[in-house]
Amino acid sequence: MNAAQLFEQIKAKRSFLCVGLDTDLNKIPECLKGQPDAALTFNKAIIDATAPYIVCYKPNLAFYEVQGAEGIRCFEQTCEYIRTKYPEIMIIADAKRGDIGNTSEQYAKAFFDTNLADAVTLSPYMGYDTVAPFLKYEGKWSVILALTSNPSAEDFEMQRMADGRRLYELVLETTKQWGDADNTMYVVGATKAFMLEGIRSIVPDHFLLVPGVGAQGGSLRDVAAYGMNSRCGLLVNSSRGIIYADRTERYAEVAGEKAREMQAEMSELLDTYLR
Amino acid sequence: MNAAQLFEQIKAKRSFLCVGLDTDLNKIPECLKGQPDAALTFNKAIIDATAPYIVCYKPNLAFYEVQGAEGIRCFEQTCEYIRTKYPEIMIIADAKRGDIGNTSEQYAKAFFDTNLADAVTLSPYMGYDTVAPFLKYEGKWSVILALTSNPSAEDFEMQRMADGRRLYELVLETTKQWGDADNTMYVVGATKAFMLEGIRSIVPDHFLLVPGVGAQGGSLRDVAAYGMNSRCGLLVNSSRGIIYADRTERYAEVAGEKAREMQAEMSELLDTYLR
Repeated sequence: MNAAQLFEQIKAKRSFLCVGLDTDLNKIPECLKGQPDAALTFNKAIIDATAPYIVCYKPNLAFYEVQGAEGIRCFEQTCEYIRTKYPEIMIIADAKRGDIGNTSEQYAKAFFDTNLADAVTLSPYMGYDTVAPFLKYEGKWSVILALTSNPSAEDFEMQRMADGRRLYELVLETTKQWGDADNTMYVVGATKAFMLEGIRSIVPDHFLLVPGVGAQGGSLRDVAAYGMNSRCGLLVNSSRGIIYADRTERYAEVAGEKAREMQAEMSELLDTYLR
Repeated sequence: MNAAQLFEQIKAKRSFLCVGLDTDLNKIPECLKGQPDAALTFNKAIIDATAPYIVCYKPNLAFYEVQGAEGIRCFEQTCEYIRTKYPEIMIIADAKRGDIGNTSEQYAKAFFDTNLADAVTLSPYMGYDTVAPFLKYEGKWSVILALTSNPSAEDFEMQRMADGRRLYELVLETTKQWGDADNTMYVVGATKAFMLEGIRSIVPDHFLLVPGVGAQGGSLRDVAAYGMNSRCGLLVNSSRGIIYADRTERYAEVAGEKAREMQAEMSELLDTYLR
């Protein structure tokens, strides 16, 4: 999937919503607990309820790895379910991988040779060697950490370099030369929406994956106002606010309602800010 | 395992060797290919042959994840094999994880609640939130990327900050305040051994995990000369140079010989440089 195809989906669904599948066996509804394949059952129900309102799913690998080999099987089956039933929906494997050379190649194979995911989140710390193997795959995406939504983004990302730029700005300027707006996205936290204007001056055309709306306090309107470009250029992620909105047997229905509410707001924001 | 216990092992075996279990199904000996559980069979044979000469194994998660759920099962079984047969040997899960808050907690659970590993490699880019959940585990280690052995360490790690320090120096100075020399190690590439002197001025007491000796061109003697402290403070990793030293039926025997050669050299270096 390239940027134009992603934008087509956004226009068709009037949504730039990404739903994070951070499926935690301790947080799923009581009615599912103890069932075999509870996490997969939960994911399928959430997916069926939210698919009409979203353009992207983002399974968070940590929540699958914590269940060992069985959890990885659930991740695989979840991706296969989306691929089969909703082939138009993008899948971002939120894995924050970052290693070099032959190791990075293995990670790229794990997510892309299998076609489990369209995109993988990557940490830029070790430089170009980290990202290069992922960029070799036509139609696949590297989603590079730039400015994240957590408080300790201050520790390194926000620190000033010798030339006055902040580290995340150096990351944007350096990494945008490695690929292009059809194979590279950036993670930019919604809690720092006012900084999106400066980020857009560095990467005007790239898609940004924006976590932190909702539970973490970011405003969807601010993100759209400061971050939207002529192809939308935004994927706004919500995880807990949608998938754990209800813990009763109505969990999927309520997740669908929450996704539809966000889609309705996004539809208005597309009218206002798409330029 | 704390630093004193690790040093006891180093003295007992006269070795600070870590063997990287980067088990690639395309690179294992022909005699194993196509066998069920070929990777696990390979790992067990390599472990039995090398265990007398080493203090640490470092399975590289990428090489297991590329085989999906089955690969993760192999990783788990490999760790369990080491735990049962060689309980004194440290296990570092080379995973380069790095995420925040509740996600980082899940990664910590995945490796530590299970007791699969004693240590996990972590990327510092997102700051304190990344490492904090790992530091809560008594007797477990965070192995933080500082200055890696790859050419593109230049892209960010080596860049100068506003105060003249390089980014990796800022990482060392900042992160050493989060934990201590009993729960934090640093990855420092052997290809930059001459820089170990400066690194030792920032973190005199911490263990350093040093990849890049052998295949990547780093010198073991230089690493010891510049990096060794009064508790050795070094774990030098070799992966391909040991586990793929021979591709015939003698693979395990030859891996054992290679490990013994490195152990013999390390024994001399401990006599010379331990201070």
